[in-house]
Amino acid sequence: MNIILLHETDFINSKTVILKDRRKNHIINVLKSQKTDTLFCGLINNNMGKGIISKIDSSKVELKVNLNQPPPPPLPLTLILALPRPKMLKRIIESSATLGVKKIYLINSWRVEKSFWQSPVLNDEILQDILISGLEQAKDTVLPQIFKKQLFTPFVKQELTDISKNSLCITAHPKTTNSCPQNVNQQTTLAIGPEGGFIDKEIETLEQIGFKTVNLGSRILRTETAVPVLISRLFPDLFVS
Amino acid sequence: MNIILLHETDFINSKTVILKDRRKNHIINVLKSQKTDTLFCGLINNNMGKGIISKIDSSKVELKVNLNQPPPPPLPLTLILALPRPKMLKRIIESSATLGVKKIYLINSWRVEKSFWQSPVLNDEILQDILISGLEQAKDTVLPQIFKKQLFTPFVKQELTDISKNSLCITAHPKTTNSCPQNVNQQTTLAIGPEGGFIDKEIETLEQIGFKTVNLGSRILRTETAVPVLISRLFPDLFVS
Repeated sequence: MNIILLHETDFINSKTVILKDRRKNHIINVLKSQKTDTLFCGLINNNMGKGIISKIDSSKVELKVNLNQPPPPPLPLTLILALPRPKMLKRIIESSATLGVKKIYLINSWRVEKSFWQSPVLNDEILQDILISGLEQAKDTVLPQIFKKQLFTPFVKQELTDISKNSLCITAHPKTTNSCPQNVNQQTTLAIGPEGGFIDKEIETLEQIGFKTVNLGSRILRTETAVPVLISRLFPDLFVS
Repeated sequence: MNIILLHETDFINSKTVILKDRRKNHIINVLKSQKTDTLFCGLINNNMGKGIISKIDSSKVELKVNLNQPPPPPLPLTLILALPRPKMLKRIIESSATLGVKKIYLINSWRVEKSFWQSPVLNDEILQDILISGLEQAKDTVLPQIFKKQLFTPFVKQELTDISKNSLCITAHPKTTNSCPQNVNQQTTLAIGPEGGFIDKEIETLEQIGFKTVNLGSRILRTETAVPVLISRLFPDLFVS
């Protein structure tokens, strides 16, 4: 937890928050903070800044906050992910939030196992907890949005054209000979298939609306490895202070 | 499993292998292969190529193999990792193997919890299974080496100088102002600290033998995300067909 993320409901007045939940436990047990210590804080979907501990005991932590910094810039990337298996989904969502992705579409595909759609991880509250954990790691406040689309063809043909308008549209696909571009510095929509990849017909449907296939060399990467590799390649400026 | 990895002991003659273990189960149950089907195979630490199924039943799979291709080139990178927590260690080792890292040193550091060194994941046989899983994903045959070093200062002062000789030496460290270089295309030794980072004295010890600190921007990444981001940044040519 590199930032204490605050909700509007934590405020008892415009400058004072009281924490009683896992954030209080983290401040006491992990950070081992004391009265007058300064913590890095941020209001969800809003500014970040400093909080000074004004009261602390085993039941609550009170902070006087001054939130005067904007959150870090978002990544100009929309992710279109064939729904990964639940364990992997959790890690991909969390690392994507940490890396600054703000829009993630989870879509169906021929090789997505039907049972994955029944996973409790897809519950909105659980997804939100995962996203918050990713933001707490990144020192960011802006919650990503996650959309679930269980029909591949209607989604691609009727919605994805609009979603991807005016952006670079690419599909990560091991079977193509085009290398993935580097340092694109533009709004990008990136589609990533399931284990085993999109089937040919799905690749064609994506191509019909302008998605060009790109590969990442001879090594086949798991989605959870491919996402940070692709983001680092497409947006190296993100990783500059 | 994008490659069936073979051991010398699987061979009954120079061109024929018999599989009876999880690889047989994978061929039958996941790949649903049949007699005369061709599978991509490789001999551990040796060539890769094709195997044609000559016999298949529920007890065994027999393949006639022709291994005439070299494995993909290794990554010119030695990883020096402060021992991560066991669950994360497993994923980092696996993804590093997939990405082509061939030497990993797991080292102690002030912020590494002592209990991590007792984890069963550090057992050599378990580590080897994780590495094999990473290679099976990558279509690679060359097993990485993992070294465990439980004393930070003697390791850095007495061994790391030799290990890192003639290489670019960098420490990933959020608190520095130097950006991580891109596209270095040279032998590199990369040190990555634990959760919370190396302490100042450790950074200094590393600096004394030539390790320059570099950062990855304002977002603090977990080690499992930082490793693929750093590799993609340092060696983008790896990701070109």
